[in-house]
Amino acid sequence: MSVYRTLTAAEAVDYARQHAGLAQPDALVAAEEVGDGNLNLVFKILDGQGISRAIVKQALPYVRCVGESWPLTPDRARIEAEILLVHGEFCPRHTVKILHHDAGLAVMIQEDLSDHLIWRRELLKGAFYPQAARQLGEYLAQTLFHTSDFYQPPQRKKAEVSRFTNPEMCQITEDLVFTDPYIEHERNASDPSLAADVAAIQADRALKAAVAALKHRFLSQAQALLHGDIHSGSIFVAQGRLKVIDAEFGYYGPVGFDIGTAMGNLLLNYCGLPGLLALREAAAAREQRLQDVRELWLAFAGGFQALAAEKSRDIMLAEPDYVRRFLREVWIDALGYCGTELIRRTIGFAHVADLDSITDESMRHECQRHALNLGKMLIFAAAHISDADALVARIRQNG
Amino acid sequence: MSVYRTLTAAEAVDYARQHAGLAQPDALVAAEEVGDGNLNLVFKILDGQGISRAIVKQALPYVRCVGESWPLTPDRARIEAEILLVHGEFCPRHTVKILHHDAGLAVMIQEDLSDHLIWRRELLKGAFYPQAARQLGEYLAQTLFHTSDFYQPPQRKKAEVSRFTNPEMCQITEDLVFTDPYIEHERNASDPSLAADVAAIQADRALKAAVAALKHRFLSQAQALLHGDIHSGSIFVAQGRLKVIDAEFGYYGPVGFDIGTAMGNLLLNYCGLPGLLALREAAAAREQRLQDVRELWLAFAGGFQALAAEKSRDIMLAEPDYVRRFLREVWIDALGYCGTELIRRTIGFAHVADLDSITDESMRHECQRHALNLGKMLIFAAAHISDADALVARIRQNG
Repeated sequence: MSVYRTLTAAEAVDYARQHAGLAQPDALVAAEEVGDGNLNLVFKILDGQGISRAIVKQALPYVRCVGESWPLTPDRARIEAEILLVHGEFCPRHTVKILHHDAGLAVMIQEDLSDHLIWRRELLKGAFYPQAARQLGEYLAQTLFHTSDFYQPPQRKKAEVSRFTNPEMCQITEDLVFTDPYIEHERNASDPSLAADVAAIQADRALKAAVAALKHRFLSQAQALLHGDIHSGSIFVAQGRLKVIDAEFGYYGPVGFDIGTAMGNLLLNYCGLPGLLALREAAAAREQRLQDVRELWLAFAGGFQALAAEKSRDIMLAEPDYVRRFLREVWIDALGYCGTELIRRTIGFAHVADLDSITDESMRHECQRHALNLGKMLIFAAAHISDADALVARIRQNG
Repeated sequence: MSVYRTLTAAEAVDYARQHAGLAQPDALVAAEEVGDGNLNLVFKILDGQGISRAIVKQALPYVRCVGESWPLTPDRARIEAEILLVHGEFCPRHTVKILHHDAGLAVMIQEDLSDHLIWRRELLKGAFYPQAARQLGEYLAQTLFHTSDFYQPPQRKKAEVSRFTNPEMCQITEDLVFTDPYIEHERNASDPSLAADVAAIQADRALKAAVAALKHRFLSQAQALLHGDIHSGSIFVAQGRLKVIDAEFGYYGPVGFDIGTAMGNLLLNYCGLPGLLALREAAAAREQRLQDVRELWLAFAGGFQALAAEKSRDIMLAEPDYVRRFLREVWIDALGYCGTELIRRTIGFAHVADLDSITDESMRHECQRHALNLGKMLIFAAAHISDADALVARIRQNG
């Protein structure tokens, strides 16, 4: 473990030469800062042909997109690397490979994924990856099952809960997802023409009570080691392949949070498509998103149920009736968290290109209102939606 | 912090002289080992008149009632002392006072409570303490509210969850309460004539699935800093006074567990009374127990709701509709945990005198069967029992 200092591009190259474990480390000659926008320093480490061979990611001691006025623990880099190592143990196919990490420098070296593309950007263009949703569901089933009480011995699991306690990053989620959008707050941002919609949300006490229940579970329900921020911008895809990155918001939390966040980002795309693509392309892409949401859930639930039948170590939790009952609770939670993701990405601090990049103003507002209404519907109706087909039918009804 | 060694009686006197903080430490002259039966060394420290002035309690590195073959971390003494200090901060009136503690020696000095009596022994005799249930409800409201996400700042609460991680003691509960009674296990003990009842419980898959849900919440739901073993033997009473002791099973868990354990032990007494007292006395004492259960819940729920309205720091959880919804969930959980307590105290490893001290064999079996049936009913019907009056009506129907 080394003492923290911010790496220059040249130091990042040196660091990768020493620690990436490549066959020919001297082939690494340059670094390109690609950033990830919000929080960290990210370098692609290039060989003499300009081909990226590894990624060096370093946590800065503040929120990059805000500045040094919002300090943030570099310990998130240790947590992120250790989560990706755990997830990689249980789902190597869909977790980015960590080649090295150093808690003191808050740095990690990841495998290069230049032959993949960021899923969100593909979704914005209407590009369809028909296996991606199923693969994401498989990643969620493997990582969430194997870190849960179904599989982890109870004493070991309790130690893992402490190891992955992530208070500063969790507080960002607690504030930005579960509090700010429902009160007046300077961190909120939304188009002025949505003011009446925002005011209605902030005056809706039944909605606040339902969101409070979701927040309380986020604060207290240590079910599994979550990714914690599994949106389409944290996922790389290629034909037939999918890799998850960026786990710095991870901690032991409610399983439904990861499922709901993933579904929510697919539905944000669904809501934005009429403003992103031409009429016919948008309609086709919307059908693909509904299919994605359905596949994601079925792959997760089917995978989890099969793992629970085969590998549960807790003989009480293994009872098949309980596994079904648990998955029903996860489903209801997931729909609620999907709803909060739709709302907070529309009127909170951190928006998504699926809505904000729509250039036509009235179309953008229409899509944003759709996201808000869909979010509210999901939060209120969660317990009354029986399965993935019923969800798809509800979403169609909603517009 | 000192290095662990088992204290002799003479050393316990010396220790109390040094650390109890009494005005005249030299007045302490003798120690009487009173034990607490299962886990620890407990000395009353006496003055020259033979009057107990303080209690020295030391954790042994194994389960006392089993022997050195069942090792158990002495760290439970640190956790217990720190829990009682936290609970004492929020409910000094009903928490035993910790005068000193030392993690290395796994020892603590508590205020003397010789002017109190153990509630279970009083209940066995049919002695009624009309304020006790309300006071216990108040203790539970104060300690559980103030350690929950309603009141604790989220980052601090996460640190507290780690500080009070109690894996070895929790595993005892996980095994003895939520697993063993539902499988064949050598640790189980029950009268042979209950064999058919035991077999029926162990073959009841719907019951297992319902108990699995309770176990999973015990394993994963860090709602508040629980006492963890709040039965009538952990509670001292005197006219108008009540003090809680023995928190070594405490950890951050589901609020309903403490409520349900407390209610369950009152109902174990209810089930045993026909075998403990003469007909008319038993009938009167049963009415008192039903009144106790009702008062306990109303004092807890009313206290929690008032504290939430007045002192919640989380503005989302503070929403009154959410507080009501949360208390409804705690109620359902509590009835389930009450049911598991009734079952495990009848056919599991650790029994209670309320049933086992009944000398007439067929009467004892009848009372034990009643406890088992009441336990099953509560586990299955929990979500359908609307309030404390409905609970009392159900219990009466059950026999």
